[in-house]
Amino acid sequence: MIPSDVLDELRLMLGEGLSTGKSDLSLHGQSETWHAEMPPDAVAYPRDTGQVAAIVAICARHGIPVIGWGAGTALEGHGSAPRGGVTVDFRHMNAVLEVRAEDMLVRVQPGCTREDLNRELRASGLMFPVDPGANASLGGMASTRASGTTALRYGTMRDQVRGLEVVLADGRIIRTGTQARKSSAGYDLTALFVGSEGTLGLITELTLRLHGQPEAVSAAVCGFETTEGAIDAVILATQMGLTPARMEYVDTATVRILNAADGADLPETPHLLLEFHGSDTAVAEDAARFGEIAGDLGGSGYAWATRPEDRTRLWSMRHRAYHTILATRPGATAIVTDVCVPISRLGEAIARASADIDASPLDGPILGHVGDGNYHAILMVDRASPAEITEAKRLSDAMVAHALDLGGTATGEHGVGLGKLHLMEAEHGAAWDVMGAIKRALDPDGVMNPGKLVRQN
Amino acid sequence: MIPSDVLDELRLMLGEGLSTGKSDLSLHGQSETWHAEMPPDAVAYPRDTGQVAAIVAICARHGIPVIGWGAGTALEGHGSAPRGGVTVDFRHMNAVLEVRAEDMLVRVQPGCTREDLNRELRASGLMFPVDPGANASLGGMASTRASGTTALRYGTMRDQVRGLEVVLADGRIIRTGTQARKSSAGYDLTALFVGSEGTLGLITELTLRLHGQPEAVSAAVCGFETTEGAIDAVILATQMGLTPARMEYVDTATVRILNAADGADLPETPHLLLEFHGSDTAVAEDAARFGEIAGDLGGSGYAWATRPEDRTRLWSMRHRAYHTILATRPGATAIVTDVCVPISRLGEAIARASADIDASPLDGPILGHVGDGNYHAILMVDRASPAEITEAKRLSDAMVAHALDLGGTATGEHGVGLGKLHLMEAEHGAAWDVMGAIKRALDPDGVMNPGKLVRQN
Repeated sequence: MIPSDVLDELRLMLGEGLSTGKSDLSLHGQSETWHAEMPPDAVAYPRDTGQVAAIVAICARHGIPVIGWGAGTALEGHGSAPRGGVTVDFRHMNAVLEVRAEDMLVRVQPGCTREDLNRELRASGLMFPVDPGANASLGGMASTRASGTTALRYGTMRDQVRGLEVVLADGRIIRTGTQARKSSAGYDLTALFVGSEGTLGLITELTLRLHGQPEAVSAAVCGFETTEGAIDAVILATQMGLTPARMEYVDTATVRILNAADGADLPETPHLLLEFHGSDTAVAEDAARFGEIAGDLGGSGYAWATRPEDRTRLWSMRHRAYHTILATRPGATAIVTDVCVPISRLGEAIARASADIDASPLDGPILGHVGDGNYHAILMVDRASPAEITEAKRLSDAMVAHALDLGGTATGEHGVGLGKLHLMEAEHGAAWDVMGAIKRALDPDGVMNPGKLVRQN
Repeated sequence: MIPSDVLDELRLMLGEGLSTGKSDLSLHGQSETWHAEMPPDAVAYPRDTGQVAAIVAICARHGIPVIGWGAGTALEGHGSAPRGGVTVDFRHMNAVLEVRAEDMLVRVQPGCTREDLNRELRASGLMFPVDPGANASLGGMASTRASGTTALRYGTMRDQVRGLEVVLADGRIIRTGTQARKSSAGYDLTALFVGSEGTLGLITELTLRLHGQPEAVSAAVCGFETTEGAIDAVILATQMGLTPARMEYVDTATVRILNAADGADLPETPHLLLEFHGSDTAVAEDAARFGEIAGDLGGSGYAWATRPEDRTRLWSMRHRAYHTILATRPGATAIVTDVCVPISRLGEAIARASADIDASPLDGPILGHVGDGNYHAILMVDRASPAEITEAKRLSDAMVAHALDLGGTATGEHGVGLGKLHLMEAEHGAAWDVMGAIKRALDPDGVMNPGKLVRQN
């Protein structure tokens, strides 16, 4: 609980920008997925960096936790408040501050969502490519080092964030990075804060790289008899220098669901969904080359479409897949796995995961960003069933253990939050202690998003 | 001075791998450029990570500085030993440990040079693209976040390092990153160590991304009446989605020197040197498109060549430029500036720098990686003339001050070392204190490369 004089101090500054309403607290304690509700004691809605700094300084003085909140689309309970405290909701700090077309940069506030940014950019010929599916906030995406379907060509948030403004745990405001394309001037603090999940500070402004809207886009679907065939096609295409913007895998279970529930009409085998970006010539060349590769590896039904409406239908279906899958079991929630492995080991990782799921009473269709070696099993569980949650966690932990054996990671893009915390020691060993040392150096009193990412006291 | 019992302890472990010979110490105290000689007390030549860890542990116990040494090509005195200590020379740890072609990864030891790695890769169809000109060691390149002529298409060392093995200041060995293409599993320690110049630990192994050798390569030279025309061409090409592998600027002074001393035969105006990588079609298309852009912006003499010998001649000339320029003033050394600015401000940055140099008694031809907004003035000085060194530093500092005003950085690729230390506070403000806090957290006794990068005690 927050002492009432501290609440008064916050209210004096924020006025209506401080909420302690029960439904508001509940909303900010919830997670997209299976995590239990852990509400904060208050929600702050700052309007500028100065207010954020003041909130953090007040909370730090009293040892009160501060948790950042973007669009609430995190999957691992990043925004929940296991120790109470003040959740800082950035919905009013959502402006596109400056578009610098010649430098292909944009400055945004953290509450701006990726879709809002791209709407703003539409007429400029530029775009922000990272696409995790959900319409996440850019501050949240940076905080979890998000990626999604287009990372293959454009990279993840790690590759897009050029600089940050950050409010530190003691209320100081710093700027990291520059507006130049590169720098060798000291430690890469930008990269340190990207993916730090609000445990080292709150991001209050981002400078992001932009990319030109592709002159031409073509999308394609291709069926494979086996998962191995699909993955071999991905490996060969990458080695040959093809850089599709998207290269997505859906397993047979997912195809069945998309056919039944979302009007798809695909043969019931594993499929790749692809998208190529570039000049007209390059897109045609890439699409044709991929067709040859797929043909050699047992691909069938390969067809590519350049009509925008066909492409939109394909990617809307892909983006809806999570909810379409969940809807096959009304009332269910999901434990979504997120391992990422070296692509040479992806076939065996998916094969083992499929066998484990087949042997389990739970359903868990598999789909993913296979060009990156990243896939998700959507393990459907009844939130009220401890047995199902235990079984899903067992499956998920087994996938992680296998991924680590293969040189991979517990989380390719969802982050640690609460849900992956118990896996960090296995993944990092002594390097996890280094993360802890950095945390203690920048947040000695542990006020920034406590309970997440680093070893807990 | 190192106590003799410590030297005995090191010698017991390293045998002939410990040197205190005068010429060896002198060699490891020297810099490529103007920095005064600052020799260590001993040079260690470890053969494996275990030896490195033992060296660091012994030195840490006695508070003795430890300095990493790769190929000795750093420009800012990174490897010098202002407080004495033990220099760890990685020449014997230079193996290519594993090439994983399907994953487009390689594991190397830090002493392996980029040319040795590419020789090893030649038959594989893969390559390591980062090319700073000098045949630097890969550990050194990671430590300074190096880049060079190909960063425009392939990125800098920041983008190539997938994971590291690091010996920390207390002798612990950690591994950062994974072999997967991406991860959201906690703080990006890999990015933190890349560019940390040996001040947080010593890199003992690197996992690096590889790229396919391009199917086709074409090179081109194009003259422009003005620097602005050349830069506008660069900006427009980037906005149109062209991704040349190299896009280098040489000013008129550099062209004159290349004509006179290296057999070039170019009109005496600013020039761009370009290289395109891709499929046959893509390279032809990109080269033709660039020609159109250049034509619109006053470019002339644009010609492109796909013959390997013509390309090799061009890039050898570019790589030799530093030494060719230095040779115009026998006995001179250089203070090489390295600012990097947003590309929209590059024209004014170069114009101001040129005017300052013209008004100075010193010569300083300008050339650089303009696609990145990064350029170098080779300010030639007599090492024995304090007045010239003072004047060159004044010019260099003025370029940095201007670059910072324009949103840029003091160093695009050379790093901080000793030479840029006095500029860090101006560039980073309070963020420099955060770097200091991280340094103290990971190296509380200040044994790792003391005197560099962070604020000095």
